[in-house]
Order: sequence, then structure tokens, then C-alpha cells
Amino acid sequence: MPDAPSPRTKVRRLPERGSYDRALIDSILDEALICHLGFVHEGTPVVIPTIHARLEDTLYFHGSPASRMLRNMRSGDEVCVNVTLLDGLVIARAAFHNSMNYRSVVIFGRPRMVDDPDEKWSALEVITNHVVAGRWAESRPMTDKEMRGTLVAALPISEASAKVRTGGPKDDMEDYQLPIWAGVVPLAMTPGQPLEDADLRVEVAVPEYVAEYRRPGTGA
Amino acid sequence: MPDAPSPRTKVRRLPERGSYDRALIDSILDEALICHLGFVHEGTPVVIPTIHARLEDTLYFHGSPASRMLRNMRSGDEVCVNVTLLDGLVIARAAFHNSMNYRSVVIFGRPRMVDDPDEKWSALEVITNHVVAGRWAESRPMTDKEMRGTLVAALPISEASAKVRTGGPKDDMEDYQLPIWAGVVPLAMTPGQPLEDADLRVEVAVPEYVAEYRRPGTGA
Repeated sequence: MPDAPSPRTKVRRLPERGSYDRALIDSILDEALICHLGFVHEGTPVVIPTIHARLEDTLYFHGSPASRMLRNMRSGDEVCVNVTLLDGLVIARAAFHNSMNYRSVVIFGRPRMVDDPDEKWSALEVITNHVVAGRWAESRPMTDKEMRGTLVAALPISEASAKVRTGGPKDDMEDYQLPIWAGVVPLAMTPGQPLEDADLRVEVAVPEYVAEYRRPGTGA
Repeated sequence: MPDAPSPRTKVRRLPERGSYDRALIDSILDEALICHLGFVHEGTPVVIPTIHARLEDTLYFHGSPASRMLRNMRSGDEVCVNVTLLDGLVIARAAFHNSMNYRSVVIFGRPRMVDDPDEKWSALEVITNHVVAGRWAESRPMTDKEMRGTLVAALPISEASAKVRTGGPKDDMEDYQLPIWAGVVPLAMTPGQPLEDADLRVEVAVPEYVAEYRRPGTGA
């Protein structure tokens, strides 16, 4: 198993849940729709939910030039990205042993702004397709004005770690005799029936990538 | 409508999505299972997913005395808490206008450690019941040793704001003629069938609060 890429990515609390395996890290990044990005603004921590997308060893972000998050990323200061997938509620006999099943990734690093037009275009393509696979090719393409009105930042996936909990509750030996139910309630982010835009003026069938919407790596 | 409680909680990007209404803020805090807590550790931002629970005007957190997050909260430094519920993917005709429907809360403040035993007990009760309503009363109660082995921190819900997007895509006028499907894919965190602990030695029926598990304020 690979080692922690840096002291601060080393999983110290419950280290048996930690992993530095890139395939696992990538699968979590690819399945999660959004991340939470932390930065320091005038000495204060700020946490913003935002869309991310991975292209090989890089995580991309986008936003408006007016966004404080993007303006802060332009400074090259450090950020911390956390991506968390909740997989279940772990209900133990003892309140103390309740837990959650989850898959989580943390990445530290200094983002760079993407100015090269080709890389920027590719980043916006992977961000669009991260949310709805196959959508980029079917969308009305980005115009030059829209490209100028969008900032893109890139973060290397180098200082990254994963933390995963699976399985049932772990109670104290003597508590297994208690007449208290214990187990797991599985959780998943599930898509509902697509709602057609009320202003759809042209008759268009729901595309398969919408009707059969799934997150990568999941049945749901 | 109430005004922003501080300059830094004022929603500046897309201010029409911002709200400072406590009932809305509370409903988002209560529905979300976890939050993302940001703090500054040795000059670097750190973002940690953690369980929160609200009791009136206070948000509570808990963890091990070995947790870096709790140790940092003990310092009384500022934290930023973000809670985000994803409600749908907004698929526009133009890639540029894709969006998401969400309900999000941000809270800034300085946490305090909860040392008073009664407040600590109440906090652990609301944290347990935040995840599974009604579970605290049916659990094997916390022991003194477990209480000592758990730190609890409190954050006032005073410097808080919500940001909400609802509805369908907003495309450019001329794009409504394009033969491109547009609409919303609703998203929800949905519970699956409870999985009984394989080590359940006593015959106990699945409690109703597990079999009929729902997040507050949702049908799912």
C-alpha cells in the first residue's frame, strides 16, 4: 500500500481507515458531485461547496471572476479540499459507538489559475461531464465571452489521502447481550425522475444520460 | 426579511439566493447529516467532515480528545461551518448555464468547549438524535468513562447565512429555440433497507425509527 505523501495527509485518527491508494482516491473524487474547498481569507477560514472534476492527476474548479473563492485561488495560497460520500448510518447498541460509513478524500495544495485556452476548454469539458456524463458534446458550446467570464483553477492530486469506514457497528463485548437492535441504514444520493423545463419549446426526447442518470461507480 | 448579521456572512455572489432567515437556516442544519468544518492549523486551511446537531441557538460537535479538529476548537480560534444539501442537477441548453439546486448554510464563529456535564450530556443526546431521531433513549447510555473520552464543542448560530437555488435552467433567450433537452434531475439522500448486525444475539425487531428512517423535513 502506498505511504502518506506528506505528514499532514497522514491519517492519524483511526489510521486503519486511511489509504493513499490513487485508484481509491480517484474513485471517490469521480463519484462525488461536489467538494468543500477551504481557504484562509484575511486570517479567517472559509469553506465553500463547489463542483470539482478530475482529469488524470489534476482537480479542476470553476467559477465567476466575482467569486471570492476563485479570487483567493488566484493568490496561490494553500487550499484544502474535502470530498465526502456518506454510505450509511452505523447504529450501535451503545450511543458511544454509533458511527457512519463513508468514503472521504482530503487534498492539500496550492492551486494555479488556468490561462491556456486549450487547458481551460478541456477543464470546462471535464467539469460539465463530471456532473452529467456526455453532456458537453450535446450542449450549446461555450462562447468566447463565456470563456472569458469563467475562471478555472487547477490543483494537483499529489498531497492526497482517503479515509473509509465500512461494515457494521463495533460494540463492547458485554453489550452484545442487550436487547437493543443494531445495524446499518445504507444511504445513497439517488436521482429522481427528470423534470423537463417548462420552457422547452422544441420537442426533444429526454437523453439517455439524463433518463438513466447514475453516478460513476454506483448502481444508483 | 432579516439582514446579514455581519459583512462576511452577506451573500455577495448572486445575492438573490441569500437569506438570513433563522427558520430556513435551522431547517437546513436539521436536515443535513453532516457539515464541513474549516479551521486554520499552522497557517494552513483544514476542512473536516463531521456530525453537527442544533439545540436552539447552538450548534454542537463532538469527537475524540485525539482529534485535531477538537484540539483546534479548544484554542478558541475561528471556524467556518458549511452545510450543503444537494437538491438537483440543473441542465441548461448552454453548458455555461448548467447549475445545481441546493440549500446551503455558512456559519462563522469561535467555538467553546463544553465542560458542564449537563450541557455535555444534552449535546450528546441531540447529536445522537440528530442522526437517528429517538435513538438516544433506546441506546445503552453513555458511561462516565465514555463521557470523559468525548469532547464536545459549541458554536453559536449567530453569524449565519443561507444560500438557496431552486427551479429550472435559465438559458439565453436565443437558445430556447435549440433542439436541446433541458430540465432538472432531482437528487436526494435516500435511506435503503436496514441491514441487521450479523452479531445480533438477541431477537429484537427493527425499531420503527430505523425501518421508517427519514431525514426531518423530507419525504425521503
